[in-house]
Amino acid sequence: MASSFLPPERLLLGPGPCNTPREVLKALGRPTIGHLDPAFLDLMNQVRDRLRTLFGTRNELTIPISATGSGGMQAVLSNLIEPGDRVLVGVHGVFGKRFADCARRLGAEVVEVECTWGGTLDLSALSAAAEGRFKLVGAVHAETSTGVLLSPSCLGGLREIADRTGALLVLDTVTSLAGMPVELDERGVDATWSGTQKCLACPPGLSPISLSPRALEVLEARSTPVTSWYFDLSAISKYWGAERAYHHTAPINMIYGIHEAMGLALSEGMDERFERHTKAAKHLCAGLEERGLTLLVQESDRLAPLTSVRIPDGVEDAAFRERLLEEHGIEIGGGLGPLAGQIWRIGLMGENATKATAERFLHAYDALSR
Amino acid sequence: MASSFLPPERLLLGPGPCNTPREVLKALGRPTIGHLDPAFLDLMNQVRDRLRTLFGTRNELTIPISATGSGGMQAVLSNLIEPGDRVLVGVHGVFGKRFADCARRLGAEVVEVECTWGGTLDLSALSAAAEGRFKLVGAVHAETSTGVLLSPSCLGGLREIADRTGALLVLDTVTSLAGMPVELDERGVDATWSGTQKCLACPPGLSPISLSPRALEVLEARSTPVTSWYFDLSAISKYWGAERAYHHTAPINMIYGIHEAMGLALSEGMDERFERHTKAAKHLCAGLEERGLTLLVQESDRLAPLTSVRIPDGVEDAAFRERLLEEHGIEIGGGLGPLAGQIWRIGLMGENATKATAERFLHAYDALSR
Repeated sequence: MASSFLPPERLLLGPGPCNTPREVLKALGRPTIGHLDPAFLDLMNQVRDRLRTLFGTRNELTIPISATGSGGMQAVLSNLIEPGDRVLVGVHGVFGKRFADCARRLGAEVVEVECTWGGTLDLSALSAAAEGRFKLVGAVHAETSTGVLLSPSCLGGLREIADRTGALLVLDTVTSLAGMPVELDERGVDATWSGTQKCLACPPGLSPISLSPRALEVLEARSTPVTSWYFDLSAISKYWGAERAYHHTAPINMIYGIHEAMGLALSEGMDERFERHTKAAKHLCAGLEERGLTLLVQESDRLAPLTSVRIPDGVEDAAFRERLLEEHGIEIGGGLGPLAGQIWRIGLMGENATKATAERFLHAYDALSR
Repeated sequence: MASSFLPPERLLLGPGPCNTPREVLKALGRPTIGHLDPAFLDLMNQVRDRLRTLFGTRNELTIPISATGSGGMQAVLSNLIEPGDRVLVGVHGVFGKRFADCARRLGAEVVEVECTWGGTLDLSALSAAAEGRFKLVGAVHAETSTGVLLSPSCLGGLREIADRTGALLVLDTVTSLAGMPVELDERGVDATWSGTQKCLACPPGLSPISLSPRALEVLEARSTPVTSWYFDLSAISKYWGAERAYHHTAPINMIYGIHEAMGLALSEGMDERFERHTKAAKHLCAGLEERGLTLLVQESDRLAPLTSVRIPDGVEDAAFRERLLEEHGIEIGGGLGPLAGQIWRIGLMGENATKATAERFLHAYDALSR
């Protein structure tokens, strides 16, 4: 009577989700057990351990939030911000804007330093705007809307600004986690959120977050309760911690999925995985340039998992992507905000981060350009 | 190297999750596609249609929120409440308390009418407390902490109080949806949230919600922005609506799951499904009473999907449930809050709502009581 949904076959080369490996799909489909089952509590501990390795941190509060990537942003900011707090955000794309918007809704006084979309952050502009004390200094590590990655030295500059203004350093690592080094502890990042559907190659539905001891102190020193019951990290951390105090029911099968996806990443080796993402992107970029296309981002700022390229003159964005999907089964992303209609975003994430997959796109591009 | 998680075999007879049917597990494990793929947009429409049937509503804004059940509560209340709003909540268990707590954190002036836990709501006490104007009148349709269902006439009484005080009627339907009639339109419910891991028999991870046109008017008339970016229903409804405006990435594979689970429910027929839940519960209750156990709730107030029974004298709660899990592979729930250590909560939800499953519990109980 009521029909099942059978998804069409797709090669997902957009900004995420990417294709989910067979092992992860298998894990998702394993029988559900209770969220207080001893076996599940064990699994939760393993998930926390694996996440810490991926994030490069020893932070106690390192867990997946029961929501998609932006839910992790909401959780982190809802807990660290109180009305009137000053927040400095470096904006160089849609997700920096979203960060600022989210903070503003929570009652923060937000100073946005808007930088060129498609470039990295302008540290001197940020430094000049950093007058007085701030609660948070934040930015997007891997701007999914433009394909820009902040370099370690840029992160160092942000950390200096945070130190000078007494702020926590907060980073969106949605499109870098498991594809590029994140290294929270080494880089002095106090709080972060990520997603599962990018380089981790797990379907969307969870948001890994991590908070440093310094961030936990800020959380404990709040003078007002967190306005969001669902995202109250004090309560959530008691569920994921030794107390096992019931807060909400964890999304059991999604936890199976992230556990398996992290297992695949760790089995491969993080350095090997980063290198694979980098090599695949280089191959794609070279192929695009060979064909006369112009990359949006200069080489030093490029985010390997996601390449943004200007749409060639005379090519109609929507029609091209529609044919790519229908005739070749390949999905890529369009531009967002002011870049809509200007660029394509091509993701080589997770299992798709290979030269062979880059070639599949390039061949399809050639076929459609003939 | 990094190992996979293989869940132990369990019969899930707690307060949810229940066992996930094979068809739904299969759906969860189907290949991920993009959240803006035409095939996925089509699926979203089907999900909305099926949800409307389940809820008994024609409400346009009827969607699954990308979070677990309490996330739906957070979404509904974050959007309908502004600081200073007056909210009347009938409390007869943990989830009524949670409702009140969530509203209070959002700045509402909350009037809690605490009724007996294990009984239905005291309408005259609620009516007496309903002085002046209120923004919301709310309650929990199916109290998962006690196993009490509000009768249609009780809901009618709440609707009258809402009418008299100019309020919207808001209902938590987490443990009733797809197991007992909800009938939002017929009963004049303006807003509700539910879960997937109860009678719908889909793993946790989504929260179906529905808002009436009257609730949408309240939403549109807000004088302050919704403080939660993630749960901003104006933006979310544009993603689920004709605009398809990107907000966040939907949890693709979970959407496959809820679509399949709703398909199973609709294929069975809602009336048949309700009757099955009712018959199974009656069989369980009779079996428990035959064995000399005392049910917490009087017959007229019982929630079929979840039966609460007093722990017999001389039986140690934790030890019994541990043996039940280890020796029989059966999970049941303990009491929450003041009922911890006092009751067990036995769920016959989804596929488990059969006499045969009730018998499996009763046999295990007999074996452990010898």
